[in-house]
Order: sequence, then structure tokens, then C-alpha cells
Amino acid sequence: MTNLSKQEALVQYAAQIGDNGLIIGHRMSEWCFRAPSIEMEMALMNCALDLIGQARELYTYAAKLDGTGKTEDDFAYLRDEKDFRNLLLAEVPNGDWGDTIVRLFFMSAYNKLFFTALTKSTDEELAAIGAKSLKEVTYHLRFSSEWLIRLGDGTDESHERVQKSINDLWAYTGELFTMTDGEKMLLEEGIAVDTAALKPEWDQIVTDVLTQATLSRPENKWAHKGGKAEGIHTESFGYIIADMQFMQRRYPGCSW
Amino acid sequence: MTNLSKQEALVQYAAQIGDNGLIIGHRMSEWCFRAPSIEMEMALMNCALDLIGQARELYTYAAKLDGTGKTEDDFAYLRDEKDFRNLLLAEVPNGDWGDTIVRLFFMSAYNKLFFTALTKSTDEELAAIGAKSLKEVTYHLRFSSEWLIRLGDGTDESHERVQKSINDLWAYTGELFTMTDGEKMLLEEGIAVDTAALKPEWDQIVTDVLTQATLSRPENKWAHKGGKAEGIHTESFGYIIADMQFMQRRYPGCSW
Repeated sequence: MTNLSKQEALVQYAAQIGDNGLIIGHRMSEWCFRAPSIEMEMALMNCALDLIGQARELYTYAAKLDGTGKTEDDFAYLRDEKDFRNLLLAEVPNGDWGDTIVRLFFMSAYNKLFFTALTKSTDEELAAIGAKSLKEVTYHLRFSSEWLIRLGDGTDESHERVQKSINDLWAYTGELFTMTDGEKMLLEEGIAVDTAALKPEWDQIVTDVLTQATLSRPENKWAHKGGKAEGIHTESFGYIIADMQFMQRRYPGCSW
Repeated sequence: MTNLSKQEALVQYAAQIGDNGLIIGHRMSEWCFRAPSIEMEMALMNCALDLIGQARELYTYAAKLDGTGKTEDDFAYLRDEKDFRNLLLAEVPNGDWGDTIVRLFFMSAYNKLFFTALTKSTDEELAAIGAKSLKEVTYHLRFSSEWLIRLGDGTDESHERVQKSINDLWAYTGELFTMTDGEKMLLEEGIAVDTAALKPEWDQIVTDVLTQATLSRPENKWAHKGGKAEGIHTESFGYIIADMQFMQRRYPGCSW
């Protein structure tokens, strides 16, 4: 199925989980100084820092496994667009506050189930990262759920707008439950999470919160994919890495 | 007044005129695939290409004068934020269509007067670039004036919104008529344009078009400055060069 060795698959697996955190964390950091209130600014930036922190641990582990002297910075700053294997949901532009909340809600519901499962990985390092991350993403899910209920069950305008956010982002949720060949190989070893198996529980979380929020769940139709399997990104991704990597590209090897 | 040699001042002068074209041209190119109609897309992209073309000629001349083997690409892709000496008006974000039209209108009215004067420069190369550019910016002024009249003398909403664009961008017009020490030195040689002297005629063009557009002229109050004199830019400038220079920073020396 895949030409990757187990070690290569594991490097890629750790990096791709890190990519989700780095990219959605970077997107959320774009709200810095722009959030609707100072409390929400702090809450959102804390979530962003959690996610970027997860990426750092995962990249550090990937670098160790890689064994060619790389560091976490090589993964964040010196890879090209196609090397990033995040879920496309992580990279979609912030849009308005409702779009950002819905994106975080979909991702956090997934992350909670994903990291719960990862704690049972036979790879002890991944299991430990899963346990630490789980506490963080559980808070992200609570934060984003509360906001989704507040917006959905709020004014006519907030309801209408956040319903549109859900409809717009729905097509990015299908990819969450796909599996790459590398993941399937690692699943057989008890290392990787069976993401396809997370769907029923994710559906349940989403349905429960949408119901409380008086919002409708869109039908499953066509879904975007290609991010985690192939590194094929949406149009705006290049701008994320241009922004994120510019300093390191301009001053190679720079440090604080 | 300045420690620059005449040659250094001339390199900087050619580059700073080029910077205006490159930066506003880059901003306008951000509209690509997003303009309100295909005709406007083509018109705006043609203006952008004219301005970027002017930058290329000016950078090529600056590189020749510099005499250290640089090319136009060094000026566009390998300088840092503080080296760019464009007028701040050129770099302000696109905003809506009205903001983009007003920015182009203010800049084109200035460019028309500036390049007309530059044709009389004692530096033959600059005089020739001035003559070629003049035809282009004359069209830009006509295009943006017509749109300004259409928006100002259009619906209540277009009138109100474009008036806001004018009010918002007005504070960036004061810098157009400032002069750097380098410019003053070159003015004494008959090389540089006396930009301070362009103001009455610029005022006249602006007042005439605003009157036709049924729009009000804001009062002159505080004005932004620091772009052309010191390379101190607005917050969004770093993102322009991260975007514009990324490919060259990622693949140094790359060519098509």
C-alpha cells in the first residue's frame, strides 16, 4: 500500500498531527489584537498557544525519530507547502468570529476524540503527548461549544450568520475521518488512531451542541480532501507559510 | 544636510520612485480574480502592470548607477522593509473597491504631475522614464477619476462609502509633497522634481474631480509621513514583502 518504512511513516504521522496544531494555531493567532473583547482575545490566544505548543512537542518527537539532526524549527520553518499534511479544516481563513468558532468547534470535537484514542497508542511518546494535549483540547471544545450556543441561540443575525459558517465549513469535516496509507500501516501496529472510527462519536457531539444552539446540521455531500493524504492545500495556504516562514527564510538560522 | 554622495542620492531617488510603482502595483494585483467585473479586472491589472513596469525600469537604472553588479531583482526581492522608500499611500490595504479607486486617484493625480516634471530632469534617463510613464499614469488618472465620479454621484450608499474612503485616505496625501534631504540635493542639480511645488496643481485636480463627484474635500489636518524619508512603514507592509519576496527567499537566485 505504501512505500514508507515504519520509521518514515511514524515521522510523518507525528509531523502531520503537529501540522494541525501549528496551522490552526497560526490562523487563530491572526486574531491577536482583533478579537471582539479582551477576554475573548486572551481565551483565543491561549487556545492558539496550546495548539502551537502541541505542534512543538510533536515536531520535536518527529525530529528525534528522523535522526538526521533536524529540530522542531526545521518542521515549522523549512518545509514547503506540499510537506505540510494538516487537515484542510485547520487552514481555512478566519472569516468572522462565528467562522473561527465553528472551525475551532469542529476541530476540537475531533481533537478530543483523537487525543483520547492516542493515549492508548503503543508508542509511549505519542501516548504521553496525547494525554497532555487532551486536557487542552477538552477546554477548547468547551469554549467553542459555549460560543456556538451563544451565537446560534442568540439574535436573529447571529443565528443566521453562524448557520452560514456551519454550512460553509461542513465540507471540510469529511477529511477528518479519512486515513492515509501511512496511518493504516501504523494502525496495524497499534500506534495510530483509527480516525474513521471516531465519526459516530464526533457526529454525536456535533449534533448535541447544534441542537442546543438551535442550529441545523447540514447534509453530508461532497467533501474536500487532499491535505493530510497528499499535501494539496487550499489557495490561501501559501500565504500562511510565506508569513510564518519569512523571517527564517530571510535570516536563515536566526534565533532570538 | 545629508551624508549621501550625489551618486548614492541618485540611486536612492530612482529606487524610491520605483518603490511607489512596485508597492501600489502589488496592492492592485491583489484584486486579481476579485474585481467587480471582468472589464474592471482587466483595467485594474493593466494599471498594476504599468506601475510594476515603471518600477522595473527605475530599479534597472538604480542597479546600473549602483555599479556593484545588482539587478532590478535585488531591489524588489532582496531589500528589507526599511530599504523601501515608497509613499505610505502606496501601501495602504486595498479595502473595498472605493478605497482602491480613491488610493489610485490620489496617486495618479500626483504621478501625472510628478512624471510631467520629471521629463524636464537634467538626468536624461530619468527624463525618458518620466516621458514613458506619463502616458500610462494619465490613463490611470482618467480611469480612477471616472470611477470616483460614478461612485460619488451614484447611489446614496456608494456616495457615503466613497466619501468615507476619501476621508480615511486623506491623511496619507500630505506625504506626497514632502521632500527628503536627498531630493533637495538632487533638486539643486536639476535632477529631482520639486514635489512641494506640485501641491497647488494637485489640489486643483482633486477639487475638480471631487466637485463633479458631489463629494467633499476633507480639511488638511495631521498627515502620516516617514515612508519615503525614513522607510518607516504601516503595519501591513511586512506582509506585502513576506508575500512578494517569499519565493526568492525560499529559492535564492531562482529564475523562470
